[in-house]
Amino acid sequence: MRTVLQDHFAVSWIALLWQAKFMTHRTILIAAALGASLSALSAPAFADEGMWTFDNFPADRMKRDHGWVPDQKWLDRSRAAAVRLTGGCSASFVSGEGLILTNQHCVATCLANLSSEGKDYLAQGFRPATRSEERPCPGQQAEVVTMISDVTGDIKNALGSLSGGALIKARDARIAELEASGCPDKDKTRCQVVTLYGGGKYSLYTYRKYSDVRIAWAPEGRAQGFGGDPDNFNFPRYALDGSFLRAYENGKPVKPAAFLKWNPRAPVAGETTFVIGNPGSTSRLWTSSQLAFEREARLPMTIATLSELRGRFIRAMSESALKRSEGQEELDGLENSLKVYLGRQKALNDPDFVARLAATEAQLKAGAATNPAIGDPWASVDSAMAANRKLYLASRFVRPTGGLYGWARALVRAAAERTKPDGERLPGYTSSALPLTEKTILDPTPVHGWVEQIYLEWSLSKAREWLGADDADTRLLLGRESPEGLAGRLVTGTSLGDPAVRKALWDGGQAAVEASSDPMILFARKLDARDRELTRLANAEVNGPLVSAGAKLADARFATFGAGTYPDATFSLRISYGKVAGWTERGVDLNPVTTIGGTFDRATGAAPFDLPAAFAANEAKIDKSVVYNFVTTNDIIGGNSGSPVLDKAGTVIGAAFDGNIHSLGGNYGYDGTLNRTVVVSAAALTEAMRSIYPSPALLAELGVKSSKKR
Amino acid sequence: MRTVLQDHFAVSWIALLWQAKFMTHRTILIAAALGASLSALSAPAFADEGMWTFDNFPADRMKRDHGWVPDQKWLDRSRAAAVRLTGGCSASFVSGEGLILTNQHCVATCLANLSSEGKDYLAQGFRPATRSEERPCPGQQAEVVTMISDVTGDIKNALGSLSGGALIKARDARIAELEASGCPDKDKTRCQVVTLYGGGKYSLYTYRKYSDVRIAWAPEGRAQGFGGDPDNFNFPRYALDGSFLRAYENGKPVKPAAFLKWNPRAPVAGETTFVIGNPGSTSRLWTSSQLAFEREARLPMTIATLSELRGRFIRAMSESALKRSEGQEELDGLENSLKVYLGRQKALNDPDFVARLAATEAQLKAGAATNPAIGDPWASVDSAMAANRKLYLASRFVRPTGGLYGWARALVRAAAERTKPDGERLPGYTSSALPLTEKTILDPTPVHGWVEQIYLEWSLSKAREWLGADDADTRLLLGRESPEGLAGRLVTGTSLGDPAVRKALWDGGQAAVEASSDPMILFARKLDARDRELTRLANAEVNGPLVSAGAKLADARFATFGAGTYPDATFSLRISYGKVAGWTERGVDLNPVTTIGGTFDRATGAAPFDLPAAFAANEAKIDKSVVYNFVTTNDIIGGNSGSPVLDKAGTVIGAAFDGNIHSLGGNYGYDGTLNRTVVVSAAALTEAMRSIYPSPALLAELGVKSSKKR
Repeated sequence: MRTVLQDHFAVSWIALLWQAKFMTHRTILIAAALGASLSALSAPAFADEGMWTFDNFPADRMKRDHGWVPDQKWLDRSRAAAVRLTGGCSASFVSGEGLILTNQHCVATCLANLSSEGKDYLAQGFRPATRSEERPCPGQQAEVVTMISDVTGDIKNALGSLSGGALIKARDARIAELEASGCPDKDKTRCQVVTLYGGGKYSLYTYRKYSDVRIAWAPEGRAQGFGGDPDNFNFPRYALDGSFLRAYENGKPVKPAAFLKWNPRAPVAGETTFVIGNPGSTSRLWTSSQLAFEREARLPMTIATLSELRGRFIRAMSESALKRSEGQEELDGLENSLKVYLGRQKALNDPDFVARLAATEAQLKAGAATNPAIGDPWASVDSAMAANRKLYLASRFVRPTGGLYGWARALVRAAAERTKPDGERLPGYTSSALPLTEKTILDPTPVHGWVEQIYLEWSLSKAREWLGADDADTRLLLGRESPEGLAGRLVTGTSLGDPAVRKALWDGGQAAVEASSDPMILFARKLDARDRELTRLANAEVNGPLVSAGAKLADARFATFGAGTYPDATFSLRISYGKVAGWTERGVDLNPVTTIGGTFDRATGAAPFDLPAAFAANEAKIDKSVVYNFVTTNDIIGGNSGSPVLDKAGTVIGAAFDGNIHSLGGNYGYDGTLNRTVVVSAAALTEAMRSIYPSPALLAELGVKSSKKR
Repeated sequence: MRTVLQDHFAVSWIALLWQAKFMTHRTILIAAALGASLSALSAPAFADEGMWTFDNFPADRMKRDHGWVPDQKWLDRSRAAAVRLTGGCSASFVSGEGLILTNQHCVATCLANLSSEGKDYLAQGFRPATRSEERPCPGQQAEVVTMISDVTGDIKNALGSLSGGALIKARDARIAELEASGCPDKDKTRCQVVTLYGGGKYSLYTYRKYSDVRIAWAPEGRAQGFGGDPDNFNFPRYALDGSFLRAYENGKPVKPAAFLKWNPRAPVAGETTFVIGNPGSTSRLWTSSQLAFEREARLPMTIATLSELRGRFIRAMSESALKRSEGQEELDGLENSLKVYLGRQKALNDPDFVARLAATEAQLKAGAATNPAIGDPWASVDSAMAANRKLYLASRFVRPTGGLYGWARALVRAAAERTKPDGERLPGYTSSALPLTEKTILDPTPVHGWVEQIYLEWSLSKAREWLGADDADTRLLLGRESPEGLAGRLVTGTSLGDPAVRKALWDGGQAAVEASSDPMILFARKLDARDRELTRLANAEVNGPLVSAGAKLADARFATFGAGTYPDATFSLRISYGKVAGWTERGVDLNPVTTIGGTFDRATGAAPFDLPAAFAANEAKIDKSVVYNFVTTNDIIGGNSGSPVLDKAGTVIGAAFDGNIHSLGGNYGYDGTLNRTVVVSAAALTEAMRSIYPSPALLAELGVKSSKKR
């Protein structure tokens, strides 16, 4: 099964999922317990900067820079067609029969989960001959925003003058109430309160949800992953990173309220583009002490430990073809995450970049000085980060990595939490969050013991290394066992890989959990008290103070920059405008588009630069002049993967799947001269469905012909 | 065979060896091409700070702080007994029959090299029943300083007003001449010019050398490595990190000019201690731009790549007992290096630590301002480091890691260099350096294909990752092959693992190398031009300017702090004084000693905290009250491993084998309140030879009885 690397950031993968920060591997994001609670708004310094909420579209700015703006009807229609995937990606309806465009890498977990020995869908892709062969993706859910309500006053009222842990508790309780009362129909709707502008604004997002999402089309893995990790976050690029899902309800394809028109034309340099999707998290408004913590402590620890994990996987996958296949998606995700962190580290080690952030902070402090009521939230953040430096290692390591452990932890917690009233529960276990939790735990997904073993023994051995052999938490984790021995005992002894066992524990609740002798359950129970204690401490000393400070920092930003600003990303729906444009790299102007033919020039025959089999087999048929990938100035971040790229007409000309290397610093700040979104064109996907992976039914559904004049 | 991680630092392991910066794994040091050329002198801020040369012993300082100083006879005798091991460690003669005390981890490579399937000397130790069973350590050489001559005027005269690459060339040529003329007897002597005070002083060290060094005694690997990586650089500690070698000449044990008296008594808290040995390299006088390069660029790259390598080894070693055994020493060294880098990164990410270094720099600049002739060497260093930022990745990766590649490179270079006059040769290939080179290449050492494969495919894939897939150097390295495929082709295709093949190539010189179709030789030949070009560029743009600036910075230091200062470490003989003392760790005063009995309390049964077999078997016999390890304030660094720890009487009370965690920042600065040397006591080694690994002959040779009253 798929284990999630987000785990490194203080909250477990399950908790992250509930907090809607559960990104795909391309979008591993740091925020989690810390960052998101201090997200606030940016003052856009560059044209095309900004991840705007639909209720605050910057029409004047765009009109000024692009000479054109979409009208409300345009905005409403595209919003209604936009899809959020709970796996951590973005997507869009592109037909009236529930067809959803996203990236291949957004369905990679699904493909891996559906694979079995002899059937490697990740490598071969998945292209059912008929609609009836489309197969459900475990754990996947599609969500469409149907309403956005401002609940700022309501939440702020609940907070009153509370602080620290009491503030967090009151906030979470009120959020749980609003979410529960807003969405009584739990089968079809989901409600989620989103904290914007660092607590300057709270919005209740209502989603129509579709829990039966099936894989409808995916190319070969090499077609998506041509160039592999070396080409990732780079451009020029030659990646067919597109796929299609289909939403079902009651066994039938969904008829969505809106869908986007497919447009297989070539993009034009300079033309205006929109990206509509769910950027996961940004940290553009962190104070200098938050950036310092990141640069001095968390990134070094994260990069060292993830790099080692990468090495373990690389070697393990060389042991057999089966392991290579079973581990591929894990490794892809891991390498992607690592590249993100290395890019962030590089940005934070760049004195010019940091000076720019410091200049903005100085501007903000000057603005805040005009309003004595704001006080000194920076000092509060400093204190919170000092507290966090004492907590973060324990918070990371007392929550070991691994899918099996994640299930055990969630089952143990759910059993306890479900006995409490909604307002008393941990955030991931409120009645509004519970259905997705349940789905995540109960959906059948394959478990690969060797993968679990690697994660758990790595996680436990890194705990001992970073906490120290004599640390109380190390002793709690290991007792007198070794990381390897303990991991082996738990992974081989547990039955949680069996969905029926998980269901029995879920249904049986507290009594079943307490009666269980499953070693993984026993291990999770052993850690539970300390895990909760760390949450309590983090809320009291870190998150609570950050929320209080965040609201004041938001006031400072409003006072300094006015309302025409955008909030940090929160894996909620945003719109970015930009244009098709290359950039200048070390003195060379880069062309913003590549063509399919370039793939053949770049291929070396050796992985990851080997041609996909169907490319090689169909070379004569392929129109090599078709635009393959292209770059735009749109401001996106992980979570935006799979977002439709629209033109002025509102038609889909591609799917965003990556950023360039400069976009990695985009977590902290956008630089319009360098940051770029990387897109796979609708034209290339169309050509693929015509000449490489013939898919006449899908082409017809998208409204394009199966052949074109050459 | 053993592959060397120093390889990461711009010069190959072979070159490093010649430059006498070839440390053991505990001593992986960064300096290499850059740092060492700018080593200069420190102004000791703390009592007990300093790694002093024997010709500048700070008698007044010591008298002031300790109320006692050794006389010249004491100094002369201990200097004459001090041994440098070319493997990168320190040691000392402790008997009149050539017995040499050092650390077990300093003979680990030897033990690994002598092992074969079924005979794992690293795990079991090596304790020959009779002297005739002592076995030669491949590549090992013992060296004793017999003379130190000041050649500053001579070298400075040769440099004249040269700069850049011309300066480096002139310096290396004059050094080669001095070394060749100083030591005409290449069989028994070795000459080496040491650059001190960043070029403020040059000294010619003459060594009596012993090329036949045999392993005489080593405990079980677990006895040395109890606590493994978790306990490494930590204290309290329970490690039997001692071993004995014996120097031979003409098949007979050497009778050294001097030896130290063995003293198996317990150390006393507060008593004065001396450490005499060869600290490898420090960077205490780097300017802020050198520290910035380290913090922002080199350490992040090094830590990420080494962590991944660590993961590859950990996983590979889990595949079989044989691999675990064959890889253990590689992994130990790798983990040790990584911990060093992480410690350095932590120090350079500590704002207080960096502020202290900056304050010293400011003081120095103020001092320099009093002498206009000094000018602004800091600006020159800034420019050199800017140039280095453009060169360092290529310099790292165009020299792939691996023992087989290292041999190939050395053979290719030696063939070309040996046709030139001495003054034209690369530093590692002058007539004074050639004998050790030859020994290193020709001594038979086992090659483990899987280890070589890991190193080479890792090194090549990291080249592509860090240089980029489209980089010219990446293309030079890989052509159209994958890192994995190329590494496999080279490692399986080469015959360089056979010492006879290496000898034929060595003896055959340029003609043999050019005629060779060995794929590793062909690969090294392909890279040679670029490799030399990078050396040329580094000399012209980095090293040359750093040497020029270094001399001026030394002038600045003399002007500011006077002559009572010590030079940065250069793997040449130094003396440090200090005392037995614990320190305060997070409010707790640590006892400076542990006892053997503590091992039994700490043992968990699970590696690396499992009891060594002989400890368990002999528990009843062992005197648990014997002092095991202890800490002192002596200022040491990697390369000092194995150094004798002397008391005022000049007797050996232990062998230094590690520093505490705070000592890792000691690369950049010493803090007497925290930095500690970790020592294995002569008392514990004696008890081990009495009760755990009975060795009556050795005990007799050391002048102690085989039993004692209990």
